[in-house]
Amino acid sequence: MPGPLSIEHLAAAVERATSGALGAHVIGDPQRVITTVAPLEAAQAGALSFLANPRYRRFAAATQAGALVLSEADQRALFPTGSPTCVLIVCEAAYTWFAFAAQALAESTEPAAGCAPSAVVHPGARIDRSATIGPLAVIDEDSSIGAGVQIGAGCYVGRRVRISEATRLHPGVRIYDGCRIGARCLLHSGAVIGADGFGFAPFRGRWVKIPQSGAVLIGDDVEIGAGTTIDRGAMGDTVIEDGVKIDNQVQIGHNCRIGAPSAIAGCVGIAGSATREAGFYTGIYPFMRNRDWERNAVLLRHLDELRERIRRLEAQVRTQQTGSDR
Amino acid sequence: MPGPLSIEHLAAAVERATSGALGAHVIGDPQRVITTVAPLEAAQAGALSFLANPRYRRFAAATQAGALVLSEADQRALFPTGSPTCVLIVCEAAYTWFAFAAQALAESTEPAAGCAPSAVVHPGARIDRSATIGPLAVIDEDSSIGAGVQIGAGCYVGRRVRISEATRLHPGVRIYDGCRIGARCLLHSGAVIGADGFGFAPFRGRWVKIPQSGAVLIGDDVEIGAGTTIDRGAMGDTVIEDGVKIDNQVQIGHNCRIGAPSAIAGCVGIAGSATREAGFYTGIYPFMRNRDWERNAVLLRHLDELRERIRRLEAQVRTQQTGSDR
Amino acid sequence: MPGPLSIEHLAAAVERATSGALGAHVIGDPQRVITTVAPLEAAQAGALSFLANPRYRRFAAATQAGALVLSEADQRALFPTGSPTCVLIVCEAAYTWFAFAAQALAESTEPAAGCAPSAVVHPGARIDRSATIGPLAVIDEDSSIGAGVQIGAGCYVGRRVRISEATRLHPGVRIYDGCRIGARCLLHSGAVIGADGFGFAPFRGRWVKIPQSGAVLIGDDVEIGAGTTIDRGAMGDTVIEDGVKIDNQVQIGHNCRIGAPSAIAGCVGIAGSATREAGFYTGIYPFMRNRDWERNAVLLRHLDELRERIRRLEAQVRTQQTGSDR
Repeated sequence: MPGPLSIEHLAAAVERATSGALGAHVIGDPQRVITTVAPLEAAQAGALSFLANPRYRRFAAATQAGALVLSEADQRALFPTGSPTCVLIVCEAAYTWFAFAAQALAESTEPAAGCAPSAVVHPGARIDRSATIGPLAVIDEDSSIGAGVQIGAGCYVGRRVRISEATRLHPGVRIYDGCRIGARCLLHSGAVIGADGFGFAPFRGRWVKIPQSGAVLIGDDVEIGAGTTIDRGAMGDTVIEDGVKIDNQVQIGHNCRIGAPSAIAGCVGIAGSATREAGFYTGIYPFMRNRDWERNAVLLRHLDELRERIRRLEAQVRTQQTGSDR
Repeated sequence: MPGPLSIEHLAAAVERATSGALGAHVIGDPQRVITTVAPLEAAQAGALSFLANPRYRRFAAATQAGALVLSEADQRALFPTGSPTCVLIVCEAAYTWFAFAAQALAESTEPAAGCAPSAVVHPGARIDRSATIGPLAVIDEDSSIGAGVQIGAGCYVGRRVRISEATRLHPGVRIYDGCRIGARCLLHSGAVIGADGFGFAPFRGRWVKIPQSGAVLIGDDVEIGAGTTIDRGAMGDTVIEDGVKIDNQVQIGHNCRIGAPSAIAGCVGIAGSATREAGFYTGIYPFMRNRDWERNAVLLRHLDELRERIRRLEAQVRTQQTGSDR
Repeated sequence: MPGPLSIEHLAAAVERATSGALGAHVIGDPQRVITTVAPLEAAQAGALSFLANPRYRRFAAATQAGALVLSEADQRALFPTGSPTCVLIVCEAAYTWFAFAAQALAESTEPAAGCAPSAVVHPGARIDRSATIGPLAVIDEDSSIGAGVQIGAGCYVGRRVRISEATRLHPGVRIYDGCRIGARCLLHSGAVIGADGFGFAPFRGRWVKIPQSGAVLIGDDVEIGAGTTIDRGAMGDTVIEDGVKIDNQVQIGHNCRIGAPSAIAGCVGIAGSATREAGFYTGIYPFMRNRDWERNAVLLRHLDELRERIRRLEAQVRTQQTGSDR
């Protein structure tokens, strides 16, 4: 539930969060109070909105938002003399300024620290006093839960798992034995960290399992989507570096190393032992950098047209061949 | 466990369910008792089967089913004078008649209403007396659970969630704070409703999270498959309209609106903010209407042949070019 | 945690496990003690490593592993007179020998048998005395849990489910009513067995559910990955035969039959009623044998180049056409 803040306070919050790196110029009343965020078309007087893509200028021109973050070019084009209804916050990185402001508005009250009576915590686990363990969560032997960590209802934290400070597990996350999660991470429901990688050797018409003896090491400030699975290493570890953001239902195979600060969009699978440099990835297995995927995906939907063009070419070339043979 | 019903009773049940919209003509003994449904090849005397696709006529001709739903054309072709062993139920929408009949046979006994002693229900939640809360389920603050709702074992229902009458959550469904589920919905295990959408702004080589302040609103009569994830809106809500059917492991991004009455088959991902009209969708991201996908998917498996044809054309054109240059 | 074994003991363990089918010749000290497995580049004196692909010969030549499994050809090429630091285990099926040896090193202590006090076990369920039921697991009416079975924390086992001996469910697996799991299976977190297949008939602009009255039957020695979903049959059953290995986030539709001993790699969806012979499958829906997929996947990333080549051809053919028309 976003809390109300004046634009002056919002700007100060963004300034603190960015160490002054995101300059913004306010045109209008800095005392106006903002209570929420909203898209351009739906925003009312108490809402902050943003214009990051010039394609949406016509929505910005008509917005009823109480405040609007936009670039100087957009401001000059749309509101050269300011706006009678809308406080303008002019910033070159409008979307990023908006992101920090939305975080300031969203700051929620922390749950009370402590273990729910229904949680099952092994006596050999170490739980920081400021951590919150939700109802029906299970914390297994020799695990260590850091300061301010929130473990949601029904989560499972295996043996010898280490979770660093201020990380949050939404309900129903499962972490296998021996994995490590850094600080300030966010894991969504249904994520599974550390299941066995898919490794088998053939023997007389059957598959022999390769024991998966590595673990998963997740850095700081990582977000992992709902239903995403990250396999433990076969030998050595699977590594997710600091700041990586992974969408829902992504599958990351054993011994992958995902470089900081990649962002991996929904529904992709990453085969075992892949190493990924920083970038924004989308698509299908074997997945691609976002720009490559978008270029190809369009064609994927029109393969039949490509085939038709090949057919026509073949017919034409055959005709010409016949013609020149004559 | 399907219960026994005479064909006459079955026909009456279908009549009630469809308000008389599905006419059927019975050839044979309407008092024959049906206990179950079965495919044409496996059906025995107590089973109801159906023929919806003329490709399977030879199986229908040899079926040992006690009763068979089929179109008039199929009946005339296969059993012009009726069948000595099989009661024929002649209906133009044979598969739909079968669906309603199978529902009548499958009607199961409801579980006893009430909260399992091991469930953890917040004192601020409102649970209708006729609802069933399974073992080890968690119902959080200010949630409201309607009449006849069944919450399976180990489900999590967050704060301020509203679930309307006769909806069923199979074990291990998770619903984040503030989401709403309509009436008569069916959610399968591992479904996650309302996790954060994937929204980040870039700032100095790292990703800044856009708080996801919308919710997920699900209409009436919606089915959601196992492991499917539907993200909450960034601003504004993600909306699934009445009657939508979604298969397993589908990912629906933030602020999508899925129109009534779409059916979305397994393993697709729908990018954020997509709006879908009614239709039947399959395939991969970016996903397509079923008919478009089927046309393209075949080619996808033969890309190497397309390339080979292009190579041959290039060689031929080169030869002709050389020829005409001479 | 792998336990220490001498190479002589390791070789004996592999011999027992394979009934003597995998011959190996040891060059060096058979009393050397091995404590773990490691990849070629990271292995230290106490580690066993392997060379299965000649591409990695240069890593094998420089490895500091205490023991190395490799083929005779690789041994002759790299270490024709043996190695001063590394015991060589020469075997034609080096990877398979390594797999069995790694299993011997990985043999872990079993958890104490019995039911966790927080588990909810229906009085009508039959639990073998040697089985282990983890904390907050739910075992429903008329289910039967075999000898040595391990049910992880928070699992759900429905009504009339039968799980045979020595099968292990990691935390958070869910098995719907009436399904059967064979012996020595391994199911990973978030797997859902027996959710409804996706079956609907159209009726007046809405979808009518086909009750899914079959079950899922899983054979012996099957492994099922994290987040994988296997739907129950519509009529008749979905069948996974003995020895099948399924990766994470695979979706298997109703009434599929997956033949022994297939291996199905991550993130594929198998449409309803598909029958699969033994093989190794990868890719996307409609999925393909691995070798077909690899051939096509490369092209998928270069569709735009294919289109460019078609464009050039069209231009050339047009030019030639114009030329010959002149």
